[in-house]
Amino acid sequence: MEISSFLTSFGSYLAIFVVLMLLFIWLSGRPGNEVVYYPSRVVKGLDPHEGGGASEDEVIAMAGVDAAVYLVFLGTALGILVLSGLVLLPVLLPVARTDNNLALSKNITFNDLDKLSMGNIKEKSPRLWGFLLATYWVSFVTFYVLWRAYSHVSNLRATAKASSEVKPQDVALLTRKEQVDDYFRNLHPDTFYRSMVITDNTQANKIWEELEGYRKKLVRAEVVFSGSKTATGFLGLVGKKVDTINFCNEKIKELEPKLEAEQKVTLREKQQNAAVVVFNSMSAAVAATQTLHAQLVDTWTVSEAPEPRQLLWYNLPKRFFERKVRSLIVYVIVFLAVVFYMVPITFISAFTTLANLKNVLEAYLPQIALIVFMALLPKFLLFLSRAEGIASESHVVRAASGKFFYFIIFNVFLGVTIGSTLFASFKEIEKKPNSIVPLLGSSLPKSATFFLTFVALKFFVGYGLELSRVIPLIIYRLKRRFLCKTEGEIKQAWAPGALGYATKVPNDMLIVTIVLCYSVIAPLIIPFGVLYFGLGWLVFRNQALKVYIPEYESYGRMWPHIHTRMIAALIIYQKFVYAPFMLPLPVLSFAFAFICNARFYKAFDRVPLEVAASHKAKQTPNLEALFSAYIPPCLNSGDKFDDADQFEDARSQPASRTTSFA
Amino acid sequence: MEISSFLTSFGSYLAIFVVLMLLFIWLSGRPGNEVVYYPSRVVKGLDPHEGGGASEDEVIAMAGVDAAVYLVFLGTALGILVLSGLVLLPVLLPVARTDNNLALSKNITFNDLDKLSMGNIKEKSPRLWGFLLATYWVSFVTFYVLWRAYSHVSNLRATAKASSEVKPQDVALLTRKEQVDDYFRNLHPDTFYRSMVITDNTQANKIWEELEGYRKKLVRAEVVFSGSKTATGFLGLVGKKVDTINFCNEKIKELEPKLEAEQKVTLREKQQNAAVVVFNSMSAAVAATQTLHAQLVDTWTVSEAPEPRQLLWYNLPKRFFERKVRSLIVYVIVFLAVVFYMVPITFISAFTTLANLKNVLEAYLPQIALIVFMALLPKFLLFLSRAEGIASESHVVRAASGKFFYFIIFNVFLGVTIGSTLFASFKEIEKKPNSIVPLLGSSLPKSATFFLTFVALKFFVGYGLELSRVIPLIIYRLKRRFLCKTEGEIKQAWAPGALGYATKVPNDMLIVTIVLCYSVIAPLIIPFGVLYFGLGWLVFRNQALKVYIPEYESYGRMWPHIHTRMIAALIIYQKFVYAPFMLPLPVLSFAFAFICNARFYKAFDRVPLEVAASHKAKQTPNLEALFSAYIPPCLNSGDKFDDADQFEDARSQPASRTTSFA
Repeated sequence: MEISSFLTSFGSYLAIFVVLMLLFIWLSGRPGNEVVYYPSRVVKGLDPHEGGGASEDEVIAMAGVDAAVYLVFLGTALGILVLSGLVLLPVLLPVARTDNNLALSKNITFNDLDKLSMGNIKEKSPRLWGFLLATYWVSFVTFYVLWRAYSHVSNLRATAKASSEVKPQDVALLTRKEQVDDYFRNLHPDTFYRSMVITDNTQANKIWEELEGYRKKLVRAEVVFSGSKTATGFLGLVGKKVDTINFCNEKIKELEPKLEAEQKVTLREKQQNAAVVVFNSMSAAVAATQTLHAQLVDTWTVSEAPEPRQLLWYNLPKRFFERKVRSLIVYVIVFLAVVFYMVPITFISAFTTLANLKNVLEAYLPQIALIVFMALLPKFLLFLSRAEGIASESHVVRAASGKFFYFIIFNVFLGVTIGSTLFASFKEIEKKPNSIVPLLGSSLPKSATFFLTFVALKFFVGYGLELSRVIPLIIYRLKRRFLCKTEGEIKQAWAPGALGYATKVPNDMLIVTIVLCYSVIAPLIIPFGVLYFGLGWLVFRNQALKVYIPEYESYGRMWPHIHTRMIAALIIYQKFVYAPFMLPLPVLSFAFAFICNARFYKAFDRVPLEVAASHKAKQTPNLEALFSAYIPPCLNSGDKFDDADQFEDARSQPASRTTSFA
Repeated sequence: MEISSFLTSFGSYLAIFVVLMLLFIWLSGRPGNEVVYYPSRVVKGLDPHEGGGASEDEVIAMAGVDAAVYLVFLGTALGILVLSGLVLLPVLLPVARTDNNLALSKNITFNDLDKLSMGNIKEKSPRLWGFLLATYWVSFVTFYVLWRAYSHVSNLRATAKASSEVKPQDVALLTRKEQVDDYFRNLHPDTFYRSMVITDNTQANKIWEELEGYRKKLVRAEVVFSGSKTATGFLGLVGKKVDTINFCNEKIKELEPKLEAEQKVTLREKQQNAAVVVFNSMSAAVAATQTLHAQLVDTWTVSEAPEPRQLLWYNLPKRFFERKVRSLIVYVIVFLAVVFYMVPITFISAFTTLANLKNVLEAYLPQIALIVFMALLPKFLLFLSRAEGIASESHVVRAASGKFFYFIIFNVFLGVTIGSTLFASFKEIEKKPNSIVPLLGSSLPKSATFFLTFVALKFFVGYGLELSRVIPLIIYRLKRRFLCKTEGEIKQAWAPGALGYATKVPNDMLIVTIVLCYSVIAPLIIPFGVLYFGLGWLVFRNQALKVYIPEYESYGRMWPHIHTRMIAALIIYQKFVYAPFMLPLPVLSFAFAFICNARFYKAFDRVPLEVAASHKAKQTPNLEALFSAYIPPCLNSGDKFDDADQFEDARSQPASRTTSFA
């Protein structure tokens, strides 16, 4: 890639960014746009324009621990790159610039950027020692920053868990088996509260959704009708609306008893082989969740209960070995998909070295192709992860995120690097087939220029769009003008949704990997990485505080995965600039990963008793309310559920503490 | 090896076995020998000559679950071989005998045994399909028998744990940290009973051992003195004995207050960073052991408490990461030792094919060298396992047994097989270096003859010596005549010790591996394997019921390891007779291992709550007695410990159940 095309794309990205920033400043101040730029504060009933210099505590209060942990991740990457750049840029750039390896080979034209990279160092030059030591520096900086971050996140998680009020998931566990009452009463005579058997709600849910649809239609028709009464000349429409109102009322009257009947049938006859068990204290639930219950493990499994809103009801009754087989099949599919996707990506990256493509195309096409490709994947991966039989939405998101990470690393990063190298030197390889390895080394700095442009596109255009919220604004305006009639519909039109870590984190991990891997070979990439994570931190702190509303809270459960993948990126990097003196580094990285895992991981996988016990001092929780949170909406429409006695088939009564079941 | 030398060794082993059997029948009936042939029954106060047709329950009652599980292991191996042999012998032997591949190559002389093996089948003969199908048959037989055995052992373990009375280890856990009381009282306010801080007892133990030495000397001197008073003419000796009695009495008087003082100092000032915590019920201890306690995992670890008698007191205070580092170092040493031992073993096995060695030497030397070599290892491996920092003796034994297994498989089995193959065909390899693989295949049946002799030696001579107990009898007789003076000394002279699984199991595993691997190539080995495990089962059931006294009970904790190693042996075997059509077999074996592990393993690693809870119905255990069982003898001499108040520094008082610590 020519220096001119690099400057062309970089300049135009910067221009887009500036325009989007100006748009943001202008639009976010305009009245009526608060619901687009400050929806999170509007929902919480806070003044949109207050709350500026926010601490981490404020982020946790507004957006939860998960958002704070995402910011820690961005800050960690930023910290690693800043500390690395402080040494690498002033040392390595002069070392590379003053050598002149590239000038020696005359048949290829090299641009000025490549002269600042390791490609300009002569073979076996003592200057390469500088690059070797730089790799050590980057590795130790990464260890230091990652260790501090893990400690910090572990602390955040413990504090948030201990200080929050008791939630339904804190006193519950999931189990697999019918007739759980006797079993759990026997094993936990003093702490068992009540259990809820999972039922097959497909039919009830269908009726309930139909009912809800008519209810919404009714509200909408009534709003239109009352509006049309004040205006005149829409008589035909009014008549139609009256028909609609009558029709909806009839349907609702018809469906309500149908739903009630179906609810009874469901609770009595459609019980599944799974249950939610509620205990009378957090400590009891935590101890029970972590204790092996049965001699034959697969006959009685217990696991942590997720929040009611993220419970994947239909995955609960799946059996132990069924889940394993499903996981296995999904992994095979993911593996095949990774291999299969390699083909188009390699083809795209080959374009980056084709000389006959126009300069403009050369500047944008590969990057845009990459981004479109990566936008298609997440939904597919979420579907696959759900199919594994995972019982909680946040766990599904984590699983999909992991698969996305493998995709990105193998296909985008390794695919582009190796693909473009092979393509560029295809003819040379034809002549002497044993020369692949040295060629790969010498053409790496060239793909560095490609990734430089890619990173710039991501942060200038990506963050510009994110902060300015131009697309959500347009969608909201259009919906409001042409579609929305009721208050509820307007609210839904500006609802900002959640931050969406599932796709954010793997994308950011790709940037970490790219910047780390090229940091020593072409140190000029570091400032780009710093800009990416610096801007990212600023943008997403703003979005976390003012825009997105989290769908669930996992107390930073994602962190161990982020940590492991950072170390994976570091190891790829350590293998990337391969030399015999590098050998201790991957070994050290594995040791570091092991130590961190041993010290921190378990408290992310389970709840430590000391965290659970710190709840004790507070008031006794309202167990019945916590228990009811798990009743799905289709079984809980209206206030019929207050007298739960009719549903005793599926749900047990609170255990009387004086009775012994031994 | 010539057929004559094989018959020579086989015949002489059989002769030795017959002689030893006759000795056993004669000696075990003679009066005065009960303590050598029935020590276990003598200790339990039962009539030595009763109790013949014993069921598994009787084995458990007499020798514990571990002995029963060892017999299950022998029975499992026997079952696999019998079921395999029923099909393989009548089918494969005729198939091999009627072909004549070996007759074609005239430069080497083959014996009749080799004509019954796969080596006699022509290359690419359709007869090889028979051998392929035989491998499938053996694999499925192994799956079936192993699955039944694992279910059975799991059941044995659960039943024995649930039905035995509450033992100290059932209500205790080990932890690492000073000042455990506050912490555990806080986290387990209703179930915490008491804790005991681990102290550095080196000094106290030294004084106590010295004291015990003088006490024993005193008893011995008194016995000799009272004996000499009735006899006459030993006046000089009597005078000397009186001196000894006085000296010992003085020393004891001097040491007793010294020990008492040291005990106080130890309990107050030598507290270590570890403790035993006792709970008021088995369920509570089980749940606490399995629950994560601290946010930072390595700061507070909890683990299952072993029986008091197998607690390795000095390993308790070792830190989490110290243990990991020690384990790592030990693994490196074991790895190096495995590689290092390869050298002499390869050398020994090379002798087996040297034509210039005399026939007699050829028949015995290699087998004897192997057995001597294997007898040297266990102590070294036990030492290494203890150095890892493992806190319980039975765990150390399991760890050593695992290391021994790797040693035997890599060095003896693979070493002998590959070594002798390489040596035999050394000259041929010199000519055409690419021919190692086909040579290995064709010379395997020859090492099969070697292993045949080896297995025969093991069961004829090994079991003969085991059952006849000639060596323990001679030692006991000699000691009794020349050394023993007191009752205690005589008891110690015939004390049979424990069965010693640590070395038995890996040796048996070697036989399983050998017989499995050669079962299809040279089916004639199967009857030898059947004899080995059949005789073994008979001999050790006798020994378990009448001789050995177990040192500890691990409720068959060894079984998962045996199971995994059986599958490992199966996979080696499936790779051993390598062919493309074999590929599904190792995959199936891994799947089988995974399923068994998922279903059964956890209940061997931890105690399931349903097993712990079945104790509930019984009477409340005497917690103080269970707690006191953990006091080491050097801190508990005499009855001074009954008023434990003076030791309150190191040991907490029982928690009053009415006080709340929240």
